[in-house]
Amino acid sequence: MVPLKPLQLKAFTLCMRLATELKGEREVILFAYRTGDYDELNVWRELDGRLSFYLSGDGVFFQVPELGALKTHLCVTWDSSSGAATVFMDGRKSLTKIYKKGHTIRAGGKVLLGQDPDSYLGDYDAKQSFVGEVCDVNMWDSVLPDRTIKDLVSGKRVQRGNVFDWETIQLKISGTVEVIHREL
Amino acid sequence: MVPLKPLQLKAFTLCMRLATELKGEREVILFAYRTGDYDELNVWRELDGRLSFYLSGDGVFFQVPELGALKTHLCVTWDSSSGAATVFMDGRKSLTKIYKKGHTIRAGGKVLLGQDPDSYLGDYDAKQSFVGEVCDVNMWDSVLPDRTIKDLVSGKRVQRGNVFDWETIQLKISGTVEVIHREL
Amino acid sequence: MVPLKPLQLKAFTLCMRLATELKGEREVILFAYRTGDYDELNVWRELDGRLSFYLSGDGVFFQVPELGALKTHLCVTWDSSSGAATVFMDGRKSLTKIYKKGHTIRAGGKVLLGQDPDSYLGDYDAKQSFVGEVCDVNMWDSVLPDRTIKDLVSGKRVQRGNVFDWETIQLKISGTVEVIHREL
Repeated sequence: MVPLKPLQLKAFTLCMRLATELKGEREVILFAYRTGDYDELNVWRELDGRLSFYLSGDGVFFQVPELGALKTHLCVTWDSSSGAATVFMDGRKSLTKIYKKGHTIRAGGKVLLGQDPDSYLGDYDAKQSFVGEVCDVNMWDSVLPDRTIKDLVSGKRVQRGNVFDWETIQLKISGTVEVIHREL
Repeated sequence: MVPLKPLQLKAFTLCMRLATELKGEREVILFAYRTGDYDELNVWRELDGRLSFYLSGDGVFFQVPELGALKTHLCVTWDSSSGAATVFMDGRKSLTKIYKKGHTIRAGGKVLLGQDPDSYLGDYDAKQSFVGEVCDVNMWDSVLPDRTIKDLVSGKRVQRGNVFDWETIQLKISGTVEVIHREL
Repeated sequence: MVPLKPLQLKAFTLCMRLATELKGEREVILFAYRTGDYDELNVWRELDGRLSFYLSGDGVFFQVPELGALKTHLCVTWDSSSGAATVFMDGRKSLTKIYKKGHTIRAGGKVLLGQDPDSYLGDYDAKQSFVGEVCDVNMWDSVLPDRTIKDLVSGKRVQRGNVFDWETIQLKISGTVEVIHREL
């Protein structure tokens, strides 16, 4: 995935729609952005069903309904100035956790969907890869208002991602991935 | 339940609202359509909480949020030409599974709610019967658009079932069943 | 919490928004109203995840999705004349249970959020206290229509609580409680 602007970020909203039936069996990586030495931003479904994200180090965890066969609209938001971290599932907002206040995500790395780049784009762990459907991956360099996230869930195109925009994105496919184009 | 047209079907959408607190204890049959020798279309809540349906043989399974005390609007759809099978819970669509492509459901059987007709309308298994509330059972001989299913959830009467229409349906009651008429 | 009218009630709707990550570990009390000798109205998240409420004695239980990090709009309703008891989560109504028909809740007690007053405002059990976010606690002396509860979920201010109104309520804070004022 090729970003529209460098990922030097002090805040972000990352959204996607996904469905997966790997419930309970294993941890699954949903999104990975890695620079040479750091996992800058990884989003995981943990072994116990919690959602988490990691900014170069320890993560922040949210106890949410399990992902499953029903398609879920998922967003994670983070803001460096307050450290406020939240997740949204189908527009429902979580409680707020304070995480990595003052941190900055570094530019110049690579983004992967559904694979963990344990060393820089080399050594993948098949047991952590994603199996299911994912689409509508969009990213912004700010925290979107709750209302805007609800509009995204219902399909209103209020604001297209200014870091990643799924409608114009260039994907490089590797592994067993089927790309399906659908009209909305 | 007496159908409005023969159930010789190459596609269907079957919807109902239901609530049940039998969570985790046992498998529960939600809908059964059986001809002389075959379980033509059975919809189950499996022991592990998954939803499933069976067209004369092995079934297709969906890992979804557990049914419980909250009323759920459930739809299952299937289309013979593509084999596409999906479920919807409260308008949220599942991922698509390919199941029994080319199959046809046979006409001339009987439909039951909440009972498994193990031999043709004879031998019921009380342990598999449904306990809870069920209403708004409607069936169509086509796959409804996602948008139409969302409208059904919110109570808009865009399209009445052309195989079963809950508003004009004739029910034959047996066992401990209480029928409550409500104005919508 | 100081009520706008005495809590001598033959019916009520009690709503709140809450998020908590104490899943599975322990029982949690969400709302407690106690007169000298009786727990007049207690709302619990039970050890097994069920929601329950108790009117001076045995309670009524609802098997619902687990509370977690996502904010949930929760209502419980009860009507003495029919005994009808229901819960709503994010506007989704549960099946109806018949509970304490003919009972009256007594006036003259004290209301607490997130603490169990085992003897009259004395002996708290820290293991049963609430940890998380709670807001928008409103109470009515009648059962609100389903439609009105859906409007409350989406933030429409159709009807302010006539027993407790969160916007004008006087809170007496004790323990580690942070009060955050937010514009809606």
